[in-house]
Amino acid sequence: MQVKVLLDESEIPRQWYNIAADLPTPMQPPLGPDGKPISPEMLAPVFPMNIIEQEVSQERWIDIPEEVLQILYLWRPSPLYRARSLEKALGTPARIYYKNEGVSPAGSHKPNTAVPQAWYNKQFGIKRITTETGAGQWGSALAFSCALLGLECKVYMVRISFDQKPFRRLMMETWGAKCVASPSNETQAGRNILAELPDTPGSLGIAISEAVEAAVSDKSGQTRYSLGSVLNHVMLHQTIIGLEAKKQLAKVNEKKVDVVIGCAGGGSNFAGLAFPFVADKIAGADIEIYPVEPSSCPTMTRGPFSYDFGDTAEMTPLLPMHTLGHKFVPPAIHAGGLRYHGIAPLVSQTIVEGLVTPRAYHQVECYKAALLWARTEGFISAPETSHAIACAIEEAKKAKEEGKEKVILMNWSGHGLMDLTGYEKFMSGKLEDFPLPEEMLQESLASISKLPKPQAAKTGKW
Amino acid sequence: MQVKVLLDESEIPRQWYNIAADLPTPMQPPLGPDGKPISPEMLAPVFPMNIIEQEVSQERWIDIPEEVLQILYLWRPSPLYRARSLEKALGTPARIYYKNEGVSPAGSHKPNTAVPQAWYNKQFGIKRITTETGAGQWGSALAFSCALLGLECKVYMVRISFDQKPFRRLMMETWGAKCVASPSNETQAGRNILAELPDTPGSLGIAISEAVEAAVSDKSGQTRYSLGSVLNHVMLHQTIIGLEAKKQLAKVNEKKVDVVIGCAGGGSNFAGLAFPFVADKIAGADIEIYPVEPSSCPTMTRGPFSYDFGDTAEMTPLLPMHTLGHKFVPPAIHAGGLRYHGIAPLVSQTIVEGLVTPRAYHQVECYKAALLWARTEGFISAPETSHAIACAIEEAKKAKEEGKEKVILMNWSGHGLMDLTGYEKFMSGKLEDFPLPEEMLQESLASISKLPKPQAAKTGKW
Repeated sequence: MQVKVLLDESEIPRQWYNIAADLPTPMQPPLGPDGKPISPEMLAPVFPMNIIEQEVSQERWIDIPEEVLQILYLWRPSPLYRARSLEKALGTPARIYYKNEGVSPAGSHKPNTAVPQAWYNKQFGIKRITTETGAGQWGSALAFSCALLGLECKVYMVRISFDQKPFRRLMMETWGAKCVASPSNETQAGRNILAELPDTPGSLGIAISEAVEAAVSDKSGQTRYSLGSVLNHVMLHQTIIGLEAKKQLAKVNEKKVDVVIGCAGGGSNFAGLAFPFVADKIAGADIEIYPVEPSSCPTMTRGPFSYDFGDTAEMTPLLPMHTLGHKFVPPAIHAGGLRYHGIAPLVSQTIVEGLVTPRAYHQVECYKAALLWARTEGFISAPETSHAIACAIEEAKKAKEEGKEKVILMNWSGHGLMDLTGYEKFMSGKLEDFPLPEEMLQESLASISKLPKPQAAKTGKW
Repeated sequence: MQVKVLLDESEIPRQWYNIAADLPTPMQPPLGPDGKPISPEMLAPVFPMNIIEQEVSQERWIDIPEEVLQILYLWRPSPLYRARSLEKALGTPARIYYKNEGVSPAGSHKPNTAVPQAWYNKQFGIKRITTETGAGQWGSALAFSCALLGLECKVYMVRISFDQKPFRRLMMETWGAKCVASPSNETQAGRNILAELPDTPGSLGIAISEAVEAAVSDKSGQTRYSLGSVLNHVMLHQTIIGLEAKKQLAKVNEKKVDVVIGCAGGGSNFAGLAFPFVADKIAGADIEIYPVEPSSCPTMTRGPFSYDFGDTAEMTPLLPMHTLGHKFVPPAIHAGGLRYHGIAPLVSQTIVEGLVTPRAYHQVECYKAALLWARTEGFISAPETSHAIACAIEEAKKAKEEGKEKVILMNWSGHGLMDLTGYEKFMSGKLEDFPLPEEMLQESLASISKLPKPQAAKTGKW
């Protein structure tokens, strides 16, 4: 019995899919500090123009450069697995498929966009890229990509992760990146924070501020900033996952997918798998599509659709998105990659349109699911990925109750070999769910109540 | 340009290759405490009879059970890569290919034998398997395999690794295995050591003694012991690596391999890749085959071919092998998997016959090679694997000097994501080579001088 479906390199998708071309309602633009739409030129000090062009593109299909493919071939096309052992353990009539994105050198889906971003920067004459990283998945993906393309890479890593996760930092350094704890003394933003709070554990918001400042303040003009999720071009680059999955499902004669699932922090691995299927749904297909988030950081299930800042320090443009408010501090769940107050504008738009239906799970249930996964499918999952697994298992059980042979497709976004302490806590019975900090949420939401509201209408067609 | 060569599951080799059938001189038998050859029956309390049959088999081809393949499909056939970026960085005319064995759930080649060993035990009615582990690669591979087959697994982990490498232990526990620090209070062997040396860091020799005792002392008869290297059946199971490589090279029209390289501690990943090519050499092909070891634990390059014990405590049968003497304590190099005083009898025999030519490298050169690898090929290598890389780079440079388009094939035996501290030491300039402890080596060799000598003649034909 076949376990995995492979594609040869010659079968790799040669274009990314841009869902902006197909959305029923046009995307609302990002807004500047004055409340007016920002122009591509205003982003030029931060990103190279070839990436900005992708960010605002309305083209449905965008060519993947040959040199980018040449690096992606190191792990792409990624294998599509049939989760036969899990199906058997659950006794479900559902057929569960998953894309294994953990086979990349950095261990997650993140290099799918890190490689093209580094390549476009290089094409534009950029020599050095700055970024921030929380748990380290994104920083290591960008470090890997810069190493292979001969670019310098500087990563501002949230101090508490820098101290607690030395191995992620060592991965970045092995790939030649410079990694500093944020807040640092290297930027004005960092120095300001340190003067006020010398013992701060740091935050993603502060690290973003530092990375952006380091990019725009380089007088040589040869440094730019890179972001690993949220933005349109990031979602675009990740669609290679879903485009491959379609080819692979066709190879095993699966003509219809019933359920598509991905965990969602900023939204990129979910969008990468799901958007090509959202396109089918727009065209009339009957598919349930679930982005999955932590119950204690319920951006999609509890956050309103609003304009909001991408960072705590209010340095970024205002983005139209589901958000808990940029002052919201998520509880310290193990899935660090899902601890973000907002979600990609493109994902938000598909929620507003009713094309996708957010789900939320608490972490104890997610670890329970991940443990069953490890002991059936064999692979040890990242804590973020475990959220998708919890949803897939619930759907498979539902299919059993209903006696339906559903086809469930899930994104297995990365391995958990660098994040095993959560498993230890779970197995020793010490892992707890965090309740949603309701009072803080209300304060955070109040603080964005005066920000502009996007006008995207809910068509309610789906 | 193609980067990797895939095989579909339908193309997987369906038989293992047993080199014992083709060796020019027959293997010498293991000897018991009385100096007489031991019979298969004498091993029955330790291993199930179906594995013992494989251990002594002279059949050239042995069928891989369908249910074993079904689990191997989780990562097999493993991809064969062309190291194009490394070739470019070296400016070599050589074509360097490598098998990526790091794609297994446990991250190395070890599950190739852990899965069939667990399966044969289960077939024989065994419920529980014991083993030892040093750095943890083998223990985690067996834990993974037992989880998927529903067997209990007990791992005696050398105390210093147990304390210093909690993440490997957590991998084993995630797969449901019980992992205890060795020496433990659970066995007589452990208690004896603890009484004498309460603060001992433990050793592989002690852990083997505990695991064997725990297996043979289970009165129910439902427990057996499993070993991850050295023995004939382990080499057999690993040959799937080389058999796949042959099919993959044929797919890209490589008609001749010039150089085959693998690192060697107990010898299994080297043998797995190399033995199918050793068969070609026996049949007349012109191939250089290099098992690579650490210069500070030079079993193959400095150790005589002698009968010796597999463990420090002299509990195992005497095996005919290259050995530094079972009292030899290798320096604390980072490549824990290569810190063994002996090498598999089958590998030893190919050395004695002149079929393969051992090489040795110091660890600083290996880390230098692994860093270049990470920044060109992208994958972060295990410290053991870095020894093969150092050799491959030397051979590629030699091909450049000679202006020859050689084909070099290497086994990339595993990733180094759980072993990054060596990289940190190397990058900060703190890593040092360990000189061979010459005096201790001479003492150790003297202590085995009275053990029987195997009579295998060197044919010198190759």
